[in-house]
Amino acid sequence: MDTCNIVENIYLLAIITALSVFQNVFFALKLDKECTSDNTRPTAIERVSCANRNCMDSYPTFIAVMWCAGVCLNQAPAAFAGLLYLIVRHKYFIGYMGQTSQSTPGYLFGKRILIFLALMCLVGVLNYLLMRFFGSDYRETVETFTSAASALLLIP
Amino acid sequence: MDTCNIVENIYLLAIITALSVFQNVFFALKLDKECTSDNTRPTAIERVSCANRNCMDSYPTFIAVMWCAGVCLNQAPAAFAGLLYLIVRHKYFIGYMGQTSQSTPGYLFGKRILIFLALMCLVGVLNYLLMRFFGSDYRETVETFTSAASALLLIP
Amino acid sequence: MDTCNIVENIYLLAIITALSVFQNVFFALKLDKECTSDNTRPTAIERVSCANRNCMDSYPTFIAVMWCAGVCLNQAPAAFAGLLYLIVRHKYFIGYMGQTSQSTPGYLFGKRILIFLALMCLVGVLNYLLMRFFGSDYRETVETFTSAASALLLIP
Repeated sequence: MDTCNIVENIYLLAIITALSVFQNVFFALKLDKECTSDNTRPTAIERVSCANRNCMDSYPTFIAVMWCAGVCLNQAPAAFAGLLYLIVRHKYFIGYMGQTSQSTPGYLFGKRILIFLALMCLVGVLNYLLMRFFGSDYRETVETFTSAASALLLIP
Repeated sequence: MDTCNIVENIYLLAIITALSVFQNVFFALKLDKECTSDNTRPTAIERVSCANRNCMDSYPTFIAVMWCAGVCLNQAPAAFAGLLYLIVRHKYFIGYMGQTSQSTPGYLFGKRILIFLALMCLVGVLNYLLMRFFGSDYRETVETFTSAASALLLIP
Repeated sequence: MDTCNIVENIYLLAIITALSVFQNVFFALKLDKECTSDNTRPTAIERVSCANRNCMDSYPTFIAVMWCAGVCLNQAPAAFAGLLYLIVRHKYFIGYMGQTSQSTPGYLFGKRILIFLALMCLVGVLNYLLMRFFGSDYRETVETFTSAASALLLIP
């Protein structure tokens, strides 16, 4: 019963995590296929490898901050932001591979989403401290604002 | 009392995590030693560095999915799969270093274990949703099946 | 109410995680700026890229073990060690960039802090097992010792 209670608060985050793992495996298989294919163009391997590395570099940051934001504040906007991040990452990976000119996309992507999640995390902690020391609970107000703010991430 | 309750559900996962950290430090020390040794063979450094990087690239994926699977469903099979993963990773690292021919092992290893853990995670969430909306709890059945299925991972 | 209870046990860890995310984004922006600046000195890019990669390689290890230690034993010393780790990492990154001679700092940094956190995690699990099978709870004694031991990390 207790475990179910915990699962209730995190199941959306767990779904996003599982999805991100499938995406990681997809990226790794793409890289593997490129490396072992017969017509080895060094630039293509280089490109896929670089895209995969950049994605993997920011992956732990994303997972850590998404779980923090989801547990401290509310899982729905955190999971929504996580889903957006996965879509942005997919577009980044595909865009990196298809690039033929020298101008590759920058190193960092989804900056805005990461900052949003980190702020959610800090706001959740702040709200807890306010409640503890002043006895005032702004949780519902904050959650409403956060849900509204997460829609703003859709703006490109 | 409450904290103990939480620890009860995750202590196997915590043990595996601590073990994986010791393994990571062991890998890093191996790389450090190779880089600062006097007889610097570039190929050996290259090889250890590459093995270490590949292991590190998939580490966050593994940790995230192991904890998700353990929390959402059952910690015993998740920790068992995690232990197998650590063994596979050790063999991969040693195998990578000892390789003298050009044929290095592929980029991705332990694919099967990662997919198994991600499926466990999804099944746990699905079970929770079924229970919530239909009132039927297949948790015990699912846990039995999962424990049995985790034994299948031993097949090479 | 239940969620607040959980937040009570992890809010220091959440703050450290959010801080580490801002630090990661700072590192990534530094690298981005160096790559797109006009006067491209290859050695500078190489140096920043290497420092960033080393920091990112050990980041998931740090996050995983800090959360484990915090949840299994006590959040205060774990968060304190985490804060020290962030400071050590910052010094490492700055030191790596400013280096002009060939002697770069080693690959691994904050080894002592990571080992300390992994030991905390194991001690917490051990204490839980002792309590479960022998009915003796050394939790408070262990927590006092751990808080004292975390001060030892300040010794350079």
